[in-house]
Amino acid sequence: MVQNGQITLYTNPNSAFCHRVEIALAEAKADYTSYVIDLNNKPSWYAAKVNPVGKVPAITYGGPQTAPEAPAPESAKIAESLVILEFLADIFPESRLLPADPVLRAQARLFIAATDRLLFGAFIAFFFKYTEGADQVLLDALEEVQRRLPPTGFAIGIWSNADISVAPLLVCFLLMLKHDLGKYPAGQGPKILEILQGPRFARLMEYIHDLEQWPSVRGTWNEVSEASYQRQNR
Amino acid sequence: MVQNGQITLYTNPNSAFCHRVEIALAEAKADYTSYVIDLNNKPSWYAAKVNPVGKVPAITYGGPQTAPEAPAPESAKIAESLVILEFLADIFPESRLLPADPVLRAQARLFIAATDRLLFGAFIAFFFKYTEGADQVLLDALEEVQRRLPPTGFAIGIWSNADISVAPLLVCFLLMLKHDLGKYPAGQGPKILEILQGPRFARLMEYIHDLEQWPSVRGTWNEVSEASYQRQNR
Ligand SMILES: N[C@@H](CCC(=O)N[C@@H](CS)C(=O)NCC(=O)O)C(=O)O
Ligand SMILES: N[C@@H](CCC(=O)N[C@@H](CS)C(=O)NCC(=O)O)C(=O)O
Repeated sequence: MVQNGQITLYTNPNSAFCHRVEIALAEAKADYTSYVIDLNNKPSWYAAKVNPVGKVPAITYGGPQTAPEAPAPESAKIAESLVILEFLADIFPESRLLPADPVLRAQARLFIAATDRLLFGAFIAFFFKYTEGADQVLLDALEEVQRRLPPTGFAIGIWSNADISVAPLLVCFLLMLKHDLGKYPAGQGPKILEILQGPRFARLMEYIHDLEQWPSVRGTWNEVSEASYQRQNR
Repeated sequence: MVQNGQITLYTNPNSAFCHRVEIALAEAKADYTSYVIDLNNKPSWYAAKVNPVGKVPAITYGGPQTAPEAPAPESAKIAESLVILEFLADIFPESRLLPADPVLRAQARLFIAATDRLLFGAFIAFFFKYTEGADQVLLDALEEVQRRLPPTGFAIGIWSNADISVAPLLVCFLLMLKHDLGKYPAGQGPKILEILQGPRFARLMEYIHDLEQWPSVRGTWNEVSEASYQRQNR
């Protein structure tokens, strides 16, 4: 793969949005420098010089290779995980981020448009707030993801950004349920897991298993999702 | 421009989401068939054969040319206005929808990610619901759009999908304010317009003026935005 400019990733091991970008960079076999931003104590240069809204992930691309703490004015600054996924697909056209066929590319983007906010919304409602009706919201969101999957394989058949967009949450939340982690009443995690392991969610569980086994997901798992799990656990 | 397959657009003249696609198709000088879906009385074949969620816009691409009421099983079905804009940029690479430079492409997508829901949310809050604080929500959203504009020119300097994503709302809402149309108290429209015409919003108003004058926006205006205006007016 050809790479024309340096890439520096600003990331945090507890962020599913960052995990997306780490998977995509692994998938593209990109050379890059990684720098962890402490979200509880953000360095002031970060908003000033990298991402004005102060969120991770963000990347710098091109310009001279500098220390991550001193990003060069000449480099491009790109934020928003899904925008970065598109950017990586553009600069690594040979990678498996987006296929060349425009119809397949549209299908990958449609899958992302249909699942992105739905899944994050349900995840927050269930694990972090346990608002009324959160069980149903979670199961409905997961059913919608399942409904959009083909009979076998990945979201558009072959591996793509569509899978990268959902993998961090889908692989993480099974573990959280199993260990009964979250704001819901004790015992609710394994109960939901039992429903997911029943026939209604067979296709989704097979898909999540495929995601877990995929090399770029496995290779980034320890760095990101395991840390997120630890955080919940303490 | 090379176009490899037929395009049929399912649209509605009152929809800003559809207006985006009409502008993009005009920009690409695409050959296409347009079919209006009556949203109050949707034909049953539409959800069954084109877009399962029943919304416009959607396109079919490729396959044999058929009557719009009888979409061919062989054609690809693509929904979601922003996904369609990316698709058109892919199949019309020579058009001015997205430039070739990956950094500029990322900037266009970032602009869209930062403004899409913000602007639609503010528009609905102000014109359709007039929820508490809606004036502020609208002005804040417009200020955020303005903040993301370069000193002159379009969202990323040159014309792109970023401009197409915001043009339908921005050109429509000035007209609505001028004619005092919406759920807000009588007289509030011109009052907000006065604020917008003041120094605080000078750059935004210049941008909206540039959008209004752009050929693909002008050329689709009568079809779409004027109808939307009529609807509000009755
Ligand atoms: N829509 C953004 C969301 C990024 C985001 O919310 N990041 C969180 C970490 S998971 C963050 O940086 N929070 C710190 C803050 O908001 O100050 C994306 O997809 O990249
Ligand atoms: N996110 C969609 C929104 C499309 C949408 O909401 N379309 C409306 C018209 S403005 C519609 O078809 N409504 C009819 C319905 O929901 O039944 C897009 O960007 O295309």
